[in-house]
Amino acid sequence: MQLGRVVGTVWATQKDPKIESMKLLVVETLDHANRPTGGYAVAADAVGAGENEVVLIATGSSARQTRTTEGKPIDAVVMAIVDSWDVGGRVVFEKSIG
Amino acid sequence: MQLGRVVGTVWATQKDPKIESMKLLVVETLDHANRPTGGYAVAADAVGAGENEVVLIATGSSARQTRTTEGKPIDAVVMAIVDSWDVGGRVVFEKSIG
Amino acid sequence: MQLGRVVGTVWATQKDPKIESMKLLVVETLDHANRPTGGYAVAADAVGAGENEVVLIATGSSARQTRTTEGKPIDAVVMAIVDSWDVGGRVVFEKSIG
Amino acid sequence: MQLGRVVGTVWATQKDPKIESMKLLVVETLDHANRPTGGYAVAADAVGAGENEVVLIATGSSARQTRTTEGKPIDAVVMAIVDSWDVGGRVVFEKSIG
Amino acid sequence: MQLGRVVGTVWATQKDPKIESMKLLVVETLDHANRPTGGYAVAADAVGAGENEVVLIATGSSARQTRTTEGKPIDAVVMAIVDSWDVGGRVVFEKSIG
Repeated sequence: MQLGRVVGTVWATQKDPKIESMKLLVVETLDHANRPTGGYAVAADAVGAGENEVVLIATGSSARQTRTTEGKPIDAVVMAIVDSWDVGGRVVFEKSIG
Repeated sequence: MQLGRVVGTVWATQKDPKIESMKLLVVETLDHANRPTGGYAVAADAVGAGENEVVLIATGSSARQTRTTEGKPIDAVVMAIVDSWDVGGRVVFEKSIG
Repeated sequence: MQLGRVVGTVWATQKDPKIESMKLLVVETLDHANRPTGGYAVAADAVGAGENEVVLIATGSSARQTRTTEGKPIDAVVMAIVDSWDVGGRVVFEKSIG
Repeated sequence: MQLGRVVGTVWATQKDPKIESMKLLVVETLDHANRPTGGYAVAADAVGAGENEVVLIATGSSARQTRTTEGKPIDAVVMAIVDSWDVGGRVVFEKSIG
Repeated sequence: MQLGRVVGTVWATQKDPKIESMKLLVVETLDHANRPTGGYAVAADAVGAGENEVVLIATGSSARQTRTTEGKPIDAVVMAIVDSWDVGGRVVFEKSIG
């Protein structure tokens, strides 16, 4: 999986019938030091992620293993909202509690 | 999924029988700021996309999850025509209505 | 799929029994302006492609969706011989007719 | 498979139900000379790997072939803890015995 | 498939039960001019390849299509030992006969 931040949404009226009503998020990918890699993925949302949230995305056929995406032409899915992660014993990212 | 723009078509008479009559589009891939990445994919068309349209492509085994591509030697499919997308609350791309 | 040019053949006597008698081509990958990308794939031939021909290759599990490659340890297949392609209304490549 | 070193853990409360109670490790990838590549993967743990251990990760659909990850939206798994490896007859890495 | 040269072996005692007794090779990947690309894969051996041999590796789900690797968390397999290959009518590599 890759770490990423939800930065936007893609809107599409004309699409494969299997993806009707699916939310498609623009996710900026992050390295493990919490810096943008310069890359992105458009990923289906399986967990109700909101803008600016840090998430995990799974890609390839693994992206079709959620109830939302099963059997659909989807190659990236947001399958977790990240609370925090650490590297070398130090907290790199921690979700702020509002 | 990746964002892309349809820029052309590939023609092939001699091909695997399973892809007879399938439209194969040249799709220039775009980053999430709507700039060409320099890359491309040749993708089967599952939604009737036209030249210059901005689309989403799914790759890998997920490209075979549309009715058009099921069970075929196709590793990229256009599965949506993009109306618009936003990043950080700003509209990056919006399809013009003719 | 990716565009490529057949530039050679790989010979291997000692191999997985499932790929006996399969032709393995060296395919130089091309960008959509018909320039070599610097990369290559060794791909099974499903369409009878000859040296110097411009072809399409499908990769990953999609490479196993032809009759030639089904159920085999093959991750790239030549599934079409390209007649021509265009980008932005201009013909980029056209197969010469001998 | 790729070589990597476990450098941390990702915590996520809100996630796909199929990955409840799965440990998600931050794995820094290594080249075959035991130098960090600059990349990383977040991988499910199938072997009880601890921080700082050198491991092997499998990606894609192969990441779902362990008992821990079967049928789940997981695209990378730690499937071995490395004792040692050699290149050109020289030991590159050897796990220290405490 | 990619061309590569077997340069070493990875040893791991603690691993997924499905890969017990499987040989894991360090394979340096080669370009089609027989130069190291700088990359590598750790690949399961399905053909009895020895150190220094030039081989073909298949990756992804295709790596699980040999008898050795079926149903296992393996994303790269050595599925052929290369005798020779040519590019543009010239032999690039030929296995020496001892």
